[in-house]
This record gives sequence, structure tokens and C-alpha cells, in this order.
Amino acid sequence: ETDKPAVMDEVLEEFGETRLALLLEAMPIDERMLRWHSIPSEEQAAILIEMRGDARNSIIRALSPEQLERLIGQLDAQDLIEIGDSLPQSVVEDALEHMDAEQREYFERSLQYNEEQIGRYVDHNLLMLPAAARVQDADRLLRRPLPPYTDSIYLFDRSGRFQGTVSTSQLFTLPGHIHLSTQIDEDAEPLSGEAELYAAATAVQESGAMALPVVDEQNRLLGRVTLHDAMVLQQSHFENLLMARAGMNEEEDLFAPVLRSSRRRATWLGINLLTAFLASWTIGLFEATLQQVVALAVLMPVVASMGGIAGSQTLTLMIRGLALKQVSRGNLVSLLKKELGIAGVNGLIWALVIAVIASVWFSSPLIGLVIAIAIAVNIVAAAFSGVMVPMVLDHLKIDPALSGSVILTTVTDVVGFFVFLGLGALLLI
Amino acid sequence: ETDKPAVMDEVLEEFGETRLALLLEAMPIDERMLRWHSIPSEEQAAILIEMRGDARNSIIRALSPEQLERLIGQLDAQDLIEIGDSLPQSVVEDALEHMDAEQREYFERSLQYNEEQIGRYVDHNLLMLPAAARVQDADRLLRRPLPPYTDSIYLFDRSGRFQGTVSTSQLFTLPGHIHLSTQIDEDAEPLSGEAELYAAATAVQESGAMALPVVDEQNRLLGRVTLHDAMVLQQSHFENLLMARAGMNEEEDLFAPVLRSSRRRATWLGINLLTAFLASWTIGLFEATLQQVVALAVLMPVVASMGGIAGSQTLTLMIRGLALKQVSRGNLVSLLKKELGIAGVNGLIWALVIAVIASVWFSSPLIGLVIAIAIAVNIVAAAFSGVMVPMVLDHLKIDPALSGSVILTTVTDVVGFFVFLGLGALLLI
Repeated sequence: ETDKPAVMDEVLEEFGETRLALLLEAMPIDERMLRWHSIPSEEQAAILIEMRGDARNSIIRALSPEQLERLIGQLDAQDLIEIGDSLPQSVVEDALEHMDAEQREYFERSLQYNEEQIGRYVDHNLLMLPAAARVQDADRLLRRPLPPYTDSIYLFDRSGRFQGTVSTSQLFTLPGHIHLSTQIDEDAEPLSGEAELYAAATAVQESGAMALPVVDEQNRLLGRVTLHDAMVLQQSHFENLLMARAGMNEEEDLFAPVLRSSRRRATWLGINLLTAFLASWTIGLFEATLQQVVALAVLMPVVASMGGIAGSQTLTLMIRGLALKQVSRGNLVSLLKKELGIAGVNGLIWALVIAVIASVWFSSPLIGLVIAIAIAVNIVAAAFSGVMVPMVLDHLKIDPALSGSVILTTVTDVVGFFVFLGLGALLLI
Repeated sequence: ETDKPAVMDEVLEEFGETRLALLLEAMPIDERMLRWHSIPSEEQAAILIEMRGDARNSIIRALSPEQLERLIGQLDAQDLIEIGDSLPQSVVEDALEHMDAEQREYFERSLQYNEEQIGRYVDHNLLMLPAAARVQDADRLLRRPLPPYTDSIYLFDRSGRFQGTVSTSQLFTLPGHIHLSTQIDEDAEPLSGEAELYAAATAVQESGAMALPVVDEQNRLLGRVTLHDAMVLQQSHFENLLMARAGMNEEEDLFAPVLRSSRRRATWLGINLLTAFLASWTIGLFEATLQQVVALAVLMPVVASMGGIAGSQTLTLMIRGLALKQVSRGNLVSLLKKELGIAGVNGLIWALVIAVIASVWFSSPLIGLVIAIAIAVNIVAAAFSGVMVPMVLDHLKIDPALSGSVILTTVTDVVGFFVFLGLGALLLI
């Protein structure tokens, strides 16, 4: 019950920005603003950065121009990139004018990369030394307060090009005059600024280091990605996968204003309505049949549901596989075989079970036969589309987590109803 | 295309265990075993540990007793806990006999905690010193090769109780005779061994440290959780959320044997079949009506789909909110109000749109009226259940991500068909 508003004040003392951001997100907007204003203004920027986009926007929209200006004054280049999309252009320009030249340069460099590239979101708090530096120079650097998650010093040459990473932990055992360039860790590969966000996060996780350097095309150091940031990127990647299945994204606010949310969700309902009308249209082809054999109408949900569920199992496995880069053309055929195999087994079993139930319910073995064939065909069609639809979407650079289920449902509804009612028309009349 | 088998051999040189584990998972079982045997045996254990449960089991099942024994010989206590469930009891006992007393003790201690508690999965590679130690002792410790992700030394007293955390980065500036106990970081709270896995992962992420110590009820140090492990736990948490929506879990193997997969998925299909038959039974109540007004049968999928989609949007938002601990009784009423508000707006809009289409299609304003009411009622019922069903399931300690959608679909199908066909019976005949 930690997100009860009553405990917010004590919570302010005890938790970090991430937790506070989560708490604010969990509050209705009026209460959120009330609590927001009780946060000391020097802590507000850090908390705002941690919030999900829509919830953050709800706060920015409610601030007066003076409050917004004070808040923006606390942002560095990385923060401004992070929340820039939520801000009016004039406010961003204002903020840039108040930054020093270095931060402005960081900002410009980040903007060279798009929202799916790690170069846009690098951290600039890091230890750097010229490649000609010695262990004693590093020692001096390490005696000052360190940026969090620091286990390396990055070396650069005279033209500013990245030369390599030196692990700090080995330096204590070395004499001061040794050149750092002789201690470069050859295994530590820098990330390209163009690397996709989740791929960058995974690379940091696998590196065993606390952070990886990020370089541009000319091999100049852009910044770094820490393991902490990698964890944030991973979370947002998976939240997007989760939310996409219902036509939303991870920025969705638990307490977005009703009209704003309604508009967004309406789009998704509209898209799915087209699917539903396609299914209706399919059924409409068999109006005469339905009038004569009303049992077919009664059993329609069973045909649609079994196809839909079987398809969504395959689709979910594929969406995870694509997200983890485990699925590609290289193993597509094997996957298809396996999923069709499963569909064959389950299609057969459930066709039999449902046939028996339907035959008894409507005292007609023929109805049992019709639904058995429809179920078996639909489960196999579901498996086939469950594999192929996300592959094709991925190839077309359309998010399979978002669009996959709509298309799949269309297939299983239309195929299911067509086979079921079509066979009904042929065999039962 | 990095997961093509052809590149596996070069890949072996270049990637770490995590990447190799992902690649093996992405291969059909025959190929997986072929590649497995081409991995140097001293690297096999580390890769196996990184694999998801089902894929790991596929390898263990295929090993000869001798191969298994050699593999098990490489495991430490933490590894054995991790894969113990995949192993026959006799093999676990054998492995324990070959461990030294310290590792055996680690193993026993881990087993005090269940599979949802962090105490079971702690890392034992850490720096520890008695609370009476001085900076010079720490210096000596830090000159040896360090465990990965080390930024702290943990202090313990004479009875083995955890005393606190000393950050290593500040030690270089201090004279050697200073007692470490004067340098304890008061903000660094240890985790309880009973902490839930994802909560522990989040705590590590928020701490700003590279790892957090984990203690038992007597405040004895059990081990630590690194930021790397936190990232693995976070991933598995979100993968479970994703997979649960289709009745699977994150251990699901992309290439599980067909019969094994079929059996598991059959369970989920069977559960959903009950839902579908409930919907059929509801329709069956109105057989006479359907026979007279076959347009109702044609439009049924629209009613069911709009309810299902609206419900799944609310449900998805709730599932994420519960997973992030953002939803509780404290904000339940506000959430319900907001979701019902959205449902009101979208219910009204789509009821009108669909009413117009249906009226024109079947040249009957009354059919338009009937479906309008059914759509509006069903979208509101979907929002209400979308909020309440996961709350109740969570309260009953049933995973809402797994069971929520089945129950929700039952509600939207039954309510939708009942209102639609019931009104049809009243108004159209």
C-alpha cells in the first residue's frame, strides 16, 4: 500500500527519484499536481525525467510559464533531450540559451540520432584522459568524486578520436609512470551511436562492464551507456511489447485525462471494428444457412475462440522471439514446421472433443463433423498465420506486437466462419 | 542474421555466454545438440546457466550420464540452485558431494527461500571484511582481482552479522589506519532474503550502487544482487507478463518438442473452450430469436469484439500497473472512475457509429438501436471488469496476467450476447 497519498510526505525523504516518479504516476491528476508542488523545487527536475511521457506531460501542461522556466533551468543537455518532445519549441530554445557551450554541443550531437538510436540518449558523466596520459594522471582523477557506475577511463587521441577503455581496478597495482595506452582492454568494444536502443542495452549487460562508451561515425566519443540506463531501456522495451498488444505504448498514463485517453483508445477500437465487420460480412454470406440451422450460430464463438487462442499462443512466442532477435529467416522453416506440428496435434484433439460435445448438444453427428473440420482447419491456419504475419510485419518494419493480433484475429475469424458456415451449407442443408 | 547456424563457430569466439545461450535457444533441437557438443566443455556450464528453463532441459535430457556428470562437476552452489529443478534428485546429491563445505552451506542456505524470493538466487562473489578492519586491509583486498560489479566492501561483526557497506571509491583518499566501520554508507540498506525477485531488482536499480547485500532474518549476510542480475530478473519478470497473456511462461522453448508443447498449450485451449461454450450457451438461450432475425447472428462478432478489445485495453493497463506496484486499493476508485469515463465516451461514440452501419446494412433502425445499446453496455461492462477482475485476482494471489483475459472474455462475451440477443428478442419480434 506504499502508493497511498497519505504516506507521500515521509516517502519523499526516503525514496529516490525513480520511486517518486512511480508514485506520482499512480495518482489521479489533481492529487498528482498537489503532491508535485510539495516537492522541493531543486528535486523536481530529476523526478520529472524519470516519469513516463504522458504522466510527465500532464505535469508540464499544468505548470505556469514561471514554474516551467524555473524547472527547465535545472536541466542539462541529456535531460532536455529526454523531455524535449513534451516542451514547446520556444521553451527548448530558452533552455538552450541558458546552457553553457559544452552542454549545447552535447544537445546538438544527440539530435543527430533518432529516437530509436542510442546516440540520442548517452550519458556525459564519464572519466576521459588523453591517450598519452599515465597511471599517475588516472590516480589523480580517481581521487575526486566519481560519476556513478564508473569502472573505466576512456582514452582519446589528439583529434578527439576514441582510443580505448582502461579498467580502473587494475591501476592501483601499477607504477605511476606507465602509459595508460598500454593498458587498454582489447575486449571492450565501443557501441555505435546508431545502435538500436535495446541492442545497446543488451550489449552493456553482456559486456560485464558497468558502462560502455558510445562513438559516432568518426569514432569520436559521444558519451556512455551505464548498466542502470541499460536496465531502464530494457524495461521500456518490454513495457512497449506488453502494451502494444492492446494498441497502447509504455508512455500511457494510468491517469490520463478521460477525453485524451478516449481519443487514443478509440483509434484502436475503430481498427478492430473493421476486423469485426469483416467477420460479420463473412457470416452474412451464409444468412440463409443460419436461418435453417440455427445451431451453427450458437457454435460460432467456439470456432472463432479456438482459432484466436491458438493463434495468439504462436504469435506471442514469435513476438518474444523477434524482440530477442531469436527469430529470423534462418530458422523460419523449422519454426513453421514445429508450430504446424503442434497445431496438427491440438487441432485433432480439440476437433474430436468439440465434435462430441456438439453432436450430443444438437443431437446431430453431422454438426459434430462440420465443427470438427472447422476447428482443425482454423487451428492450423492460426499457427501458419501466427508465424508468418509477425515475420512479414517485421520485414516491413511494422511492429508485430502492435498490429499482429488484429491481423491474426481477422484471419482466424474469417477462415473459421467461412469454413464452418460453408461446410454447414454444404452438409447440413 | 546473427542467429544463422552457419556463423555459430565464429560466434563462439566472439560472444559471451548470454548471447550463445540465446543462439542455442533459437535452434531446432537436433541442431542445438550438434552445436552444443562443439562448445568446449569448460564453457558449457556457464552457457547452460544462461538458458531459459525449457531449452536448458532439452539439452540436459539429451546428455549421457557421463556427460551430465562432467557438466555438473563445473557448477557452484548458485549454479546448482539455478538449474537444480531440471536435474534428477540423484544428480543434485552427487553434485553436492563434490562441492566443498562452503559451497554446500551456500546451497543449503539458498534452499531456505522459495523460487519467488531473492534469498534463493544471491551471488556469493563479494568482498567482505570484519568490522574491525582498517583502510589498509581494504587496500590489500582491492589489489587482488575483484569480483565483477564490485563497488563496495561488506562489513560483518564477530557473530557474522552484517554491519554495513563501505564504498571502495572513497578509500583511496583515506589514511591506512582509519577504521572501515567509521566509513559505513548509512543510506545503503541491505535487502531481506525474503524480498520478492522483481522488488529486489528494482531496489538495486534505484540504489545507485552496483550491487546490494542480502541478509537473512538474523541479519547474517547471505550474498548480494548485482545490477547485472537485477537486469536478468527484470527481463524474466516482463517476459512472464508478456507470455502469460497467452497461457505460457518465460521458460517456454521456441523449439520445444511438438508433443510436449502441444500438451501444455492444450490446457490453455481447454480453459478457453469453457469460456467459448459459455458464450455459446448464452446464444443458445435465444435460438428462436436468431431463427427469426438472422441479422442478429451476423452482427454478433461486432458486439463481442468491441467488448473484448475495450476490456483488454483496461486489463493491460491494470496488469502493468499491478506489476509496477502502481495500482492498489488506494487508487482503485479513481481508476475505476477514469476507466468508466473512457468507456462512457467510447461506448457512446461507437454505439452511434455501429448503429448507423447496422441500420443501413439491414435497413432496420430497430436493429441499429439494439446493437447500440448492446455495444454501449458491453464496453462499460468491459471497463468495469477490466479494473475489478485483475484487482480481485491479485488479492487472491492469482496471476492477473495469466487468468485475467480468460475471465474478462467470458464477461464481455456473455454480457454482450445476452444484452444484444435479449434486446433483439424484446424489440425485434
